[in-house]
Amino acid sequence: MTTQLEITLPPFPRGFHLITRHVLDNLPELPQQGILHIFIQHTSAGICINENADPTVRLDFETVFDKLIPDGTKAYVHSYEGPDDMPAHIKSSIVGQSVSIPITNGRLNLGTWQGVYLGEFRNHGGRRRLILTALS
Amino acid sequence: MTTQLEITLPPFPRGFHLITRHVLDNLPELPQQGILHIFIQHTSAGICINENADPTVRLDFETVFDKLIPDGTKAYVHSYEGPDDMPAHIKSSIVGQSVSIPITNGRLNLGTWQGVYLGEFRNHGGRRRLILTALS
Amino acid sequence: MTTQLEITLPPFPRGFHLITRHVLDNLPELPQQGILHIFIQHTSAGICINENADPTVRLDFETVFDKLIPDGTKAYVHSYEGPDDMPAHIKSSIVGQSVSIPITNGRLNLGTWQGVYLGEFRNHGGRRRLILTALS
Repeated sequence: MTTQLEITLPPFPRGFHLITRHVLDNLPELPQQGILHIFIQHTSAGICINENADPTVRLDFETVFDKLIPDGTKAYVHSYEGPDDMPAHIKSSIVGQSVSIPITNGRLNLGTWQGVYLGEFRNHGGRRRLILTALS
Repeated sequence: MTTQLEITLPPFPRGFHLITRHVLDNLPELPQQGILHIFIQHTSAGICINENADPTVRLDFETVFDKLIPDGTKAYVHSYEGPDDMPAHIKSSIVGQSVSIPITNGRLNLGTWQGVYLGEFRNHGGRRRLILTALS
Repeated sequence: MTTQLEITLPPFPRGFHLITRHVLDNLPELPQQGILHIFIQHTSAGICINENADPTVRLDFETVFDKLIPDGTKAYVHSYEGPDDMPAHIKSSIVGQSVSIPITNGRLNLGTWQGVYLGEFRNHGGRRRLILTALS
């Protein structure tokens, strides 16, 4: 039994954001055991899992990623979509565009401190589409 | 129903390459709903998803990754396979060696701008093997 | 048929470690064809796949990741858990917290040189929990 649904997130500002609640509120029917696959249909945003309690962790994520892959147009050939576009593509592939989470006893089996992050890498990324697929 | 097949890519030069067509031309039978898992059986190449239209995006990927993890032999203990080998291993684990893509209505449900990239991180990587697994 | 089990790794020192044997010795029942999903329930450690033969590869991984995302407390707002904590969170999301490996003819279908790595990013990370899920 595979279940699947598409959800659209509200627009988020540039940065890392905890979206566990958005996912939990929109889950497809879960099996007793399996995997939930969360996929973002974009190339300038990403999905990852990290610390769910202290908002400064997400702040530091943004700082570090911006330092590693700075905005700009001189370093990039692909610059016509603005100084935040090409770095957003790179960050998206470093962070990844999906996560898979175990399902155990009909529930997501995340660790105590794990939450689902949206990495919004554009200055004005707008609404982002996710596809949630539960496999058993 | 799980379907699976192995494909071998032609040799690609060092860099990032759009291989969506290679994947679509060699798909196992797809279920109506599920996940396609694409796995590369190598440790100096990677698979990711990114922008499928403008080739300069792939060019900039190569520039940025080479700057983040430069070739060389002085920084690395593992240097006997050449100055491009150890950086290739690192890039491979940063980009990742698999992607999973939702299947919806019997087709890959990629976003409009998403394509599958091969990251070839060796100067002469040769033919690379992929294993495609469709789960439902 | 989905099978799943949880295993706890012994404590590893900071660095990258080959844990293929720990996984193979604790596999759930595998189907003939499918995917094995390995998930770590932590946000300051990661799981990836890389070269399984030469230990200096893992040594160089540690060197490169420490250079890219250095320890410290000045660069980070989230610093009260020590200078190795925030960098560990970042590394964890760059490397990723899960891998998926094809299962073919009832066995893991890794490439010749591929092994499973634990990235232990804390100085004293302690025991780490993995959830192994085999899907078919």
